[in-house]
Amino acid sequence: MSAELVQLVTSLAQRARAASLVLATAPTTKKDAALLKLAELIDASRFELLEANQRDLLSPDALSLSPASRDRLTFNEKRLEHLAASVREVIALPDPVGLVLDDITRPNGLHIRKIRVPIGVIGIIYEARPNVTIDCAILCLKSGNAAILRGGKESFHTNTALAGLISQALVTAGLPADSIQLVPTTDRAALTTLLKLDTLIHCIIPRGGENLIRYVAENSTIPVIKHYKGVCFVYVDSAADFAMAEAIILNAKVQRPSACNAAEQLLVHRDIAQNFLPSIARRLRANQVELRCDAASAAILDRAEISSIHASPADYSTEFLDYVIAVRVVDSLDLAIATINRDSSNHSDAIVTADPAAAQKFLAEIDSATVYWNASTRFTDGYEFGYGAEIGISTDRLHARGPMGLPELCSYKFLIEGTGQVRS
Amino acid sequence: MSAELVQLVTSLAQRARAASLVLATAPTTKKDAALLKLAELIDASRFELLEANQRDLLSPDALSLSPASRDRLTFNEKRLEHLAASVREVIALPDPVGLVLDDITRPNGLHIRKIRVPIGVIGIIYEARPNVTIDCAILCLKSGNAAILRGGKESFHTNTALAGLISQALVTAGLPADSIQLVPTTDRAALTTLLKLDTLIHCIIPRGGENLIRYVAENSTIPVIKHYKGVCFVYVDSAADFAMAEAIILNAKVQRPSACNAAEQLLVHRDIAQNFLPSIARRLRANQVELRCDAASAAILDRAEISSIHASPADYSTEFLDYVIAVRVVDSLDLAIATINRDSSNHSDAIVTADPAAAQKFLAEIDSATVYWNASTRFTDGYEFGYGAEIGISTDRLHARGPMGLPELCSYKFLIEGTGQVRS
Repeated sequence: MSAELVQLVTSLAQRARAASLVLATAPTTKKDAALLKLAELIDASRFELLEANQRDLLSPDALSLSPASRDRLTFNEKRLEHLAASVREVIALPDPVGLVLDDITRPNGLHIRKIRVPIGVIGIIYEARPNVTIDCAILCLKSGNAAILRGGKESFHTNTALAGLISQALVTAGLPADSIQLVPTTDRAALTTLLKLDTLIHCIIPRGGENLIRYVAENSTIPVIKHYKGVCFVYVDSAADFAMAEAIILNAKVQRPSACNAAEQLLVHRDIAQNFLPSIARRLRANQVELRCDAASAAILDRAEISSIHASPADYSTEFLDYVIAVRVVDSLDLAIATINRDSSNHSDAIVTADPAAAQKFLAEIDSATVYWNASTRFTDGYEFGYGAEIGISTDRLHARGPMGLPELCSYKFLIEGTGQVRS
Repeated sequence: MSAELVQLVTSLAQRARAASLVLATAPTTKKDAALLKLAELIDASRFELLEANQRDLLSPDALSLSPASRDRLTFNEKRLEHLAASVREVIALPDPVGLVLDDITRPNGLHIRKIRVPIGVIGIIYEARPNVTIDCAILCLKSGNAAILRGGKESFHTNTALAGLISQALVTAGLPADSIQLVPTTDRAALTTLLKLDTLIHCIIPRGGENLIRYVAENSTIPVIKHYKGVCFVYVDSAADFAMAEAIILNAKVQRPSACNAAEQLLVHRDIAQNFLPSIARRLRANQVELRCDAASAAILDRAEISSIHASPADYSTEFLDYVIAVRVVDSLDLAIATINRDSSNHSDAIVTADPAAAQKFLAEIDSATVYWNASTRFTDGYEFGYGAEIGISTDRLHARGPMGLPELCSYKFLIEGTGQVRS
């Protein structure tokens, strides 16, 4: 690794740290002014942004991407309009900084306040999705965090153009230009260097596929918040309303199969499997969903002359992100809970039942970020919770679990006021 | 690394994970019953514990420890009494699990509750301090977390004896014996293996010196919460009450120099340095405190004929944990803040001033876990905050910052109740 590259990345992080100290106490009005300016700049710079995006799309790196990845890299007028709108939405969200989380006066007279403050410097590591540059920059900015952005090399020109607008917006609002910085090289060694700067960067958030997240988690000495996969379950209990169960399964599976909160796994209680499975299976098949079945469910579907595939053991813990669902019959609620706690990714799991006792047991014992009773797993989302924009859905248990929005981009500190108290 | 060792550690972690699912919904009464039984067992097993401790103290490993480390390894009647008392104190603390942190009903009728739950499985990595075995076990147990304990090899027999009592207490209370397990080998490879089991263990807390913490942070793929050093500052502003400033500095430095919240660094505003420094310096010297001074403070002390040492650059960011303090003169409040934000470990920093505006600026701009106005840094402590026992003082910014007690040993999950809602 060249000393020059280490110097480049270290200097960038030092400037981010310095900017973070200014940003931490910046008033909401300044942060919102920068966001408004950024939205205006995106609107006014469509031609330049589309041009930079074309350069990326025509690069050899981008030409070898999958069609889905190329699509995610592609900007168009409509997507830029949406991008500017997303910036304006964050202006409307409340500033999380400064909230008093606890306020205590101790017997010795010490007045202790626990208040919400920004984390500091956050590194965002992502793939060739230039919208992430804006999504993450605006959430970090609103929560008073400095950000270092490192996007996929295929989107380098688009990201550079966007970073230019961000910098311009910051300066116009009187905030440090270094508050949000893009790593100005696509060299892989820059990432490796970045992930070790644990005295300057306080948190790393990788956004992308499992391989990227794993690479970051294994190479970082900075704390990482992970947004891993969603292997989400729907369990249909013996006391389920069949029509409700069908509606929930169909929605959880086909409304947007590529989402992390889409269902991948169906468990059905043995007592109702015979009566319930053929009908939902027909509806899933009508929606082009492939059924990967255990022996019990396959036998039921065979008798009903519905086509299915025998599941492999791996299918039972796979995030298909596609029109595929694995199906199993379970003997009891307890076994459903044990199966989910073993095979799910602890993201979002649901029970459909009319039995409140079964539901409460499921809610209490399922060890997942979000546990549903009689609702689709698709609701795991910052907007759906009423929390607003999120930087991701955390599958970690420390700091943030589930939707990670502005409050979760914050830490806290204790302010202690005395009159000369000393410890005895 | 032997396959057998990997198997041993993996199996232990699998059993911890299974136990954690039971412990997560265990009622407070059962957890408290286990704690009470443990206190009784410690009281009743003093002879066996002292015997095990003697075996450790006579081992070649222990004989080569420093006197301070040997002291920390040593049990005696009084320390065992204190240990049992600390278990009883945790019984008196409120159970953090189950608290409703948020309760929302969405326009679509979804009822969302955010509730506090245990983290899951916590790994505690520590040195030859057998009291940590109990301190950490009881906090993990009360907060519903399964724990895997890995102590220093010099304390292996004492830890094994304590783990036997913990296991007995758990079983007596009807809780899984695997809830708290000691790694049954001192092989270093067991630790390396443990730190990679990120699908079974959810959090690692290293307790010990900087080298141990750094080793764990660099080798773990599991999230780590760090309790690094405390390079704590006291800044005496131009508007300080001298008597108050002296009392605070003296307390912060000499009341317990080995504590992480003891002051290591003194900054004095130039306007008062001439008048203030000689008096506090004399009192520090009278308490055997060595003064490591910058040129300006040394000149003042020289004129007053008080002995001091010229500080090296490293002294300005050193945690001495001893009767030593580094002294600097600063030109302004702004420079004091910049110096602290650059050189402190962001643990506990104090200003002494009668000027509320200066104090509020200091409280807002100092980027540390606890920031004091007119009080000693020595108050950074779970008990002093009224929070009760703590597992450490976190110098991280994610999840827990400052005293990490029972609530900070928890995560949360969302329980969502519907009536068949699907996402459109």
